Amino acid sequence: MAQHSAVLDGVFDALADPTRRAVIRRLGRGRASVGELARDAPMTLPSFMKHVRVLESNGLIRTTKSGRVRTCELNRERLALVDDWLAEQRGIWTERTDRLDRFVTNTQEKP
Amino acid sequence: MAQHSAVLDGVFDALADPTRRAVIRRLGRGRASVGELARDAPMTLPSFMKHVRVLESNGLIRTTKSGRVRTCELNRERLALVDDWLAEQRGIWTERTDRLDRFVTNTQEKP
Repeated sequence: MAQHSAVLDGVFDALADPTRRAVIRRLGRGRASVGELARDAPMTLPSFMKHVRVLESNGLIRTTKSGRVRTCELNRERLALVDDWLAEQRGIWTERTDRLDRFVTNTQEKP
Repeated sequence: MAQHSAVLDGVFDALADPTRRAVIRRLGRGRASVGELARDAPMTLPSFMKHVRVLESNGLIRTTKSGRVRTCELNRERLALVDDWLAEQRGIWTERTDRLDRFVTNTQEKP
């Protein structure tokens, strides 16, 4: 659980940046090289590489190097952790609504 | 768009911490005072208050003070921004799959 929590910390932290979210959006359309991805980013290549490394170290993307070209690929499974966390929250809200419903029904039945 | 992006930065940043996620989970069951929330957190009250302030400044919770008691409430709408962002990504993936499908179909039709 603590381990899972640390993974979520990293995923949310990686998503808290517009450059990194733009990379994820672009990779949703298919693989791309670091060079292609960097072209859309308003910063130097070394600065951009830092973002790539944050995404990779948190498992949101995978990269492979062939010659001088590093290709990036989205890891959708890691994004699914965010989905799961949101679903867990919605489950809690639904439980609460059900509990309130039962309370109102019981109160109405006992005048 | 840039403004919306800055809001998302803050929301993801606020979620990148287990204490803050625990507060969100707890408030999903209903309002609670800072005192009640702090009881479950393994830290001093001042440290815990910093987390409350991060959640509040990023719009994930609302707080109201009555006498000496500060009550916290979840702002689900702010969490819905994360849902929207994920839905946008899934939309991009689906588009891509459809494009690949069309490509495969077209290739098969022209032998």
